[in-house]
Amino acid sequence: MSKPSITTILSPRLLQLYDISNSIVVIIDVFRATSTIATALYNGAAKVIPVDSVEQCIATGRNLNAITAGERDGKIIPGLQYGNSPAEYYRDFIHGKTLVLTTTNGTRLLHMALSKGASEVVTGSFPNISAVCNHLLQMNKNVILGCSGWKDRFNLEDTLFAGAIIQRLQEHFTINGCDSSLMAENMYGLHKHHLYSFIQKTSHWHRLAAYGLEKDLEYCITEDGANVLPVYTNNALIAAK
Amino acid sequence: MSKPSITTILSPRLLQLYDISNSIVVIIDVFRATSTIATALYNGAAKVIPVDSVEQCIATGRNLNAITAGERDGKIIPGLQYGNSPAEYYRDFIHGKTLVLTTTNGTRLLHMALSKGASEVVTGSFPNISAVCNHLLQMNKNVILGCSGWKDRFNLEDTLFAGAIIQRLQEHFTINGCDSSLMAENMYGLHKHHLYSFIQKTSHWHRLAAYGLEKDLEYCITEDGANVLPVYTNNALIAAK
Repeated sequence: MSKPSITTILSPRLLQLYDISNSIVVIIDVFRATSTIATALYNGAAKVIPVDSVEQCIATGRNLNAITAGERDGKIIPGLQYGNSPAEYYRDFIHGKTLVLTTTNGTRLLHMALSKGASEVVTGSFPNISAVCNHLLQMNKNVILGCSGWKDRFNLEDTLFAGAIIQRLQEHFTINGCDSSLMAENMYGLHKHHLYSFIQKTSHWHRLAAYGLEKDLEYCITEDGANVLPVYTNNALIAAK
Repeated sequence: MSKPSITTILSPRLLQLYDISNSIVVIIDVFRATSTIATALYNGAAKVIPVDSVEQCIATGRNLNAITAGERDGKIIPGLQYGNSPAEYYRDFIHGKTLVLTTTNGTRLLHMALSKGASEVVTGSFPNISAVCNHLLQMNKNVILGCSGWKDRFNLEDTLFAGAIIQRLQEHFTINGCDSSLMAENMYGLHKHHLYSFIQKTSHWHRLAAYGLEKDLEYCITEDGANVLPVYTNNALIAAK
């Protein structure tokens, strides 16, 4: 029997070039949305509702009596309550609560993936890489690794995470025909033993480190700190049982 | 004085995310359009007119009494005279002639770059890498490396060429803030000593090698076999003096 495939999509802008129907789509937004989502769910959040506008975040938060969160330029967006740092969502605070999170890059990709017929949408990040990989191995279906990028531009942190997934799964999946996957795997292989120093060369690091977020970023490239599988169901991400 | 920048754009689909005004755009379509263009001009073609449809190729060829060329699926397109192999355009045949070449990926990117206000458009490939690099060094302006990709998808051969350019120019230019350039440079650095074996892993190689084009592909990743600078002027690419 032929192996299922792994395809990497380097920007939401490229998603429409691919047939993603009947595939599991892994939404990747390493700095920091999908790392924050994993952390909140791991620490017991009831669910995380990703929305793509501040207005929707405020309205949904009010309707559900939920926590609203989002940042622009490293600061909490006026009208919202919390930011986009995984460190904010520790267990004593987030347990049992619903978080409405507005993110620019990841949320739009998630909605696009659903509208294009993905069979399942999950979110991935280094803090929950093992949970994601175990699920993909178990499902044995075609996989789309969807990098959120930065304002639709290619970014390295999402690509490196895609490469990390591919390295773990490559025995059981094929990446034939997908140059993006081959590149991602190569880049991760090249830098996995010094990820922290390499990531400091990337554009997003510079943007966020300027806001004093180095600790956050270090957490976001560390494996399995929040090992849970966020699955999108009924407009929200919940931790798979 | 600050150094000019090099920005790499991994797919025509991503071009609109970037400000390319006042920049020199290098159109890259390694397999095989820009390699063929360099070769034809190096061997004395009067000019190469890139067009994006077969109909336009036939009409322009008739108007100018020029050679028409283009391939689909490794075969000459019905109605055109020649293919897209650099080997077809040897000196005794092409000298003094005009070539009208239809290509899917590179031509569209070239026209997009012009419409977005590039200050100059040139074409690049391994066979003319030194001519391109010398020109960029001399001009000392911001550079956009535009990868044509394959049907708007990311591909590795164009990325590797972008990386080769960056390695040669990095002392005099900055790639800060451009993760695509950092990745391209890394990928080229990783594979430059075994480019021929690595390129055989790429999707485009498999597509073209199936048509028996290995010799072509080997030529297309060899440096300086056709060291000329194709510059786009008056709807045609001509060899810079």
